[in-house]
Amino acid sequence: MRDCIGGVCAPRGFLAAGVAAGIKKRDSSKKDIALILSQVPAQVAGVFTTNRVQAAPVLWSKQVVAGGRARAIVANSGNANACTGEAGEKAARAMAERVAASSAGLCPAGEVIVASTGVIGVPLPLEVVTAGIERAWSILNQEGSQDAAAAIMTTDTFAKETAVEIEIEGKPVRVGGIAKGSGMIHPNMATMLAFLTCDARVEGPAWQALLKEAVDQTFNMVTVDGDTSTNDMVVALANGLAGPETPLAPGQPGWEKLVQAVTEVCRRLAIAIARDGEGATKLLTVKVRGALNSEQARLAARAVAGSSLVKSAVFGADANWGRVMAALGYSGAEFDPDRVAISFQSGDLHLPVFWQGAPVVFEEATARELLSQAEITIAVDLAAGAAEATAWGCDLTYDYVRINADYRT
Amino acid sequence: MRDCIGGVCAPRGFLAAGVAAGIKKRDSSKKDIALILSQVPAQVAGVFTTNRVQAAPVLWSKQVVAGGRARAIVANSGNANACTGEAGEKAARAMAERVAASSAGLCPAGEVIVASTGVIGVPLPLEVVTAGIERAWSILNQEGSQDAAAAIMTTDTFAKETAVEIEIEGKPVRVGGIAKGSGMIHPNMATMLAFLTCDARVEGPAWQALLKEAVDQTFNMVTVDGDTSTNDMVVALANGLAGPETPLAPGQPGWEKLVQAVTEVCRRLAIAIARDGEGATKLLTVKVRGALNSEQARLAARAVAGSSLVKSAVFGADANWGRVMAALGYSGAEFDPDRVAISFQSGDLHLPVFWQGAPVVFEEATARELLSQAEITIAVDLAAGAAEATAWGCDLTYDYVRINADYRT
Repeated sequence: MRDCIGGVCAPRGFLAAGVAAGIKKRDSSKKDIALILSQVPAQVAGVFTTNRVQAAPVLWSKQVVAGGRARAIVANSGNANACTGEAGEKAARAMAERVAASSAGLCPAGEVIVASTGVIGVPLPLEVVTAGIERAWSILNQEGSQDAAAAIMTTDTFAKETAVEIEIEGKPVRVGGIAKGSGMIHPNMATMLAFLTCDARVEGPAWQALLKEAVDQTFNMVTVDGDTSTNDMVVALANGLAGPETPLAPGQPGWEKLVQAVTEVCRRLAIAIARDGEGATKLLTVKVRGALNSEQARLAARAVAGSSLVKSAVFGADANWGRVMAALGYSGAEFDPDRVAISFQSGDLHLPVFWQGAPVVFEEATARELLSQAEITIAVDLAAGAAEATAWGCDLTYDYVRINADYRT
Repeated sequence: MRDCIGGVCAPRGFLAAGVAAGIKKRDSSKKDIALILSQVPAQVAGVFTTNRVQAAPVLWSKQVVAGGRARAIVANSGNANACTGEAGEKAARAMAERVAASSAGLCPAGEVIVASTGVIGVPLPLEVVTAGIERAWSILNQEGSQDAAAAIMTTDTFAKETAVEIEIEGKPVRVGGIAKGSGMIHPNMATMLAFLTCDARVEGPAWQALLKEAVDQTFNMVTVDGDTSTNDMVVALANGLAGPETPLAPGQPGWEKLVQAVTEVCRRLAIAIARDGEGATKLLTVKVRGALNSEQARLAARAVAGSSLVKSAVFGADANWGRVMAALGYSGAEFDPDRVAISFQSGDLHLPVFWQGAPVVFEEATARELLSQAEITIAVDLAAGAAEATAWGCDLTYDYVRINADYRT
C-alpha cells in the first residue's frame, strides 16, 4: 500500500468541487457546498447515525444506499437540515434534484447521496443551497478534493483528506476519502461525515459489509465528547474503473488488500478527526490488549478515551492513572484489577504506572514531560484474554467549552 | 414533613465530629476525618458503586452492610485508598479497628462503615489517619454534623447537610444526612459519599429496599461528568430511638411517610451535589414526561443532563435545543421526534422552543435572559407514554477543565 495524492479524486473517474454559497452567516466566504461525482455509476455502501432523531438528508441517503447505486454526493455545512419538519425532507430532496438537473439526466436524483452538517433546527436556505450546487457542478474537476473537504468543515480547524493505492492482479486500485467532524464525535458516528471513493469493481453486499467493519474499527473508535448526532454518515462509492471486469469478492486474491486499503483510509480520517477535536491540543490513543473479547476491548478503550477526567488530566499533563482504572472499571469490560497493567507512552518514552494491582513508583517530572507531548498513548493490558482494540480521542480543554458555549450565533 | 437543623445529628442518639488530621497535603488545616456514631446499634443499609474497580473501604463496608448492623461511620477525604493492593485492605480494616479501640468495645470493628475519597493509588498515611480518628472520637458531639460534612469534602465548594422531621403515630421521627461529591458524579454513584441517619425503628431488608429506591430516584439521577468512581456509597443507619418498640414495615401507617422523608433528604443532597459540580455556575434540572416507562424516562433525562454539548450551551446561555433533541435521540428512549415538545424554564420564565416536530420561533434576547439565570430547567414531553423522571446536572465551564487538569498535586 502506498500513499497517493488527490483525496476522493485519486481513484479513476471521480471529480469534486467545493464552493462558498453563503450558508455560513458568520463568514460567507467560507466554503459550504461540496460535490463529488463518479463519471460512471458506482456501488454505494453507507453507515449512518444510530440516533433516533435523524436529519432529513440521513433518511434520504439511506434510501439511496438501499438502492445500491449512486453517482454523486452533495453535502452542505453550516446547517444540519435537522428537526425542521416537512420542510427538511423537501430540502433534502431538492438538493438531490438540483444535482440531477445540473447533470442533464446523467445522474438521477435517486442516485445522489445528500448530507448536511451544522446547526440543528434552522430551515435550510434552499435557494442559496441550490445556487451553490449549480456553481459547484460547473467547476467539478480532478483537483477538487481539497475544496470539497474544506466545504464540509464546521468547527474543524483543518480539512481532512487522504488516499492510498494498492495493486490487485497487477493493476493499481485506489481508495480516497474526505471527512469532517470535531466536536460531538463518539462511537456510532456523531456529527461526522466521511465520503470514500474507490475504483475497484465490487458487489454491493460485500462492499457494504467491508465498509461496516472498517467503520467499526476506525470511526466508531473515535470519541471527542460522548455526544452522538442526528446527521452523520460514512458513504463509500466504488465505480469499477480500475477493472477487472468481474467484481472482486471476499475470498478472492486482492479482497484482503482492498479491506486493508479502505480500513487504512478510514483510520487516517478517524485519527484526523480525533486530533481536531474541539479545542484539542493533544491526540490521545488508547490501546487495550488482553481483553476477554473484541467487544470488551472496544468498550474498555472507548471508556478511557472518552472519560472527561482522563481527558482533563491529559490536558494538564497529569499522570493520573487512577482515572484510567476508574474508567476501565465502569467500561463494562471484565478484568481483575489486581492483574491490570497501565503505561503512558509517547514516541520512545514509555512510563509504566500500574502493574499487578499496585502503583509503579515514577518520577513526576518524567511523567510531566511525557504527557506534555502532542501525541500520547495510554496502553492497557487487562490480562483477561487475547483481544485488543484501539480508540482515539483528545484532551478536554478550555477551548472546548468556549467553542460550545455559544455555537449558534 | 418539616425542616430541622442538625444534619446527621438531628435524629436522636447520633453524634458526629470532623477533624483535620493532615491527609490533605495542599492545606493541612482542612478537615479530612469524619466520624458518626449511633449511641445504640442501628440497622444499616447501603448502596455502593457499580465500578468493577472497588476501593478497599467499599469492600469492607459491603461486608458490614451484609451483616445488617452498624454503630459508626468513619470516612476520610484526601485519599481514596483505592488501587493500592493489600495495603489498602489493611488500611480500611485498621480504620474500623481504630474506631473499635476508641470505643473500648462498645462498637465492634465489624459494625464500623469505612469510606474514603480523594486521589486514587496513593497509599493511605495510616498513622495520620488513625491519630485523626482518635481525635475525632474524643470530640464526638451533637453539633458535629457540619464538621463531619466538611471533613468529607474534596473539590466540593460547600458542605452538604440537611434534615427533616415527620410524625409517625404521634411521635417525631427524624432523618438527617450529609454528602460530598462534585466531579465524577454520574448515575450509579460516582465519587460521592452520602451518610444518612434516622431514629425510626425498621427491619433490615425493608430499610435496604427503601434506601435503594430513594437512591435510584435521587443520587442516581445526578450527572456531572459521566465518570463513575471506585469509592462511592450511600449508607443509612436507623437506630430505632424514636420508637415505637415494633419496627415500622411497608404497608403500615407511617411507612410511606418514612419513604418520603428519606427520599427528600436524598433529593436535597443530590441537588446540592449537582449544584456544586466542578466548576459549575448553574444548576440544570431536566424533567422528562410522557416516556414509555420509568426506565426510558430516566435514560432520557440523564442523557440530556449529561450531554457535554447541552452543558456547554447552558454555560453560554445559548438556547441550542437541537442538542437536547440529539441527546434524547441517543438516550435509548423510544419516541417519535415529530411529537416531542421541549421548553426552557427558570422561575416564572417559560420558553417553548420545539413543538410537534418543528422549532418554535422565539426571541433570542428572551432565551438569553432565561438561560442566564442560576437555575435552569429543561422540560421535555416525549409524548410516548405516561412515565416521568427528573435528572440534575450543571453547566460545563472553563473551571471544570482547570480543576481537573491537575488534581493530584
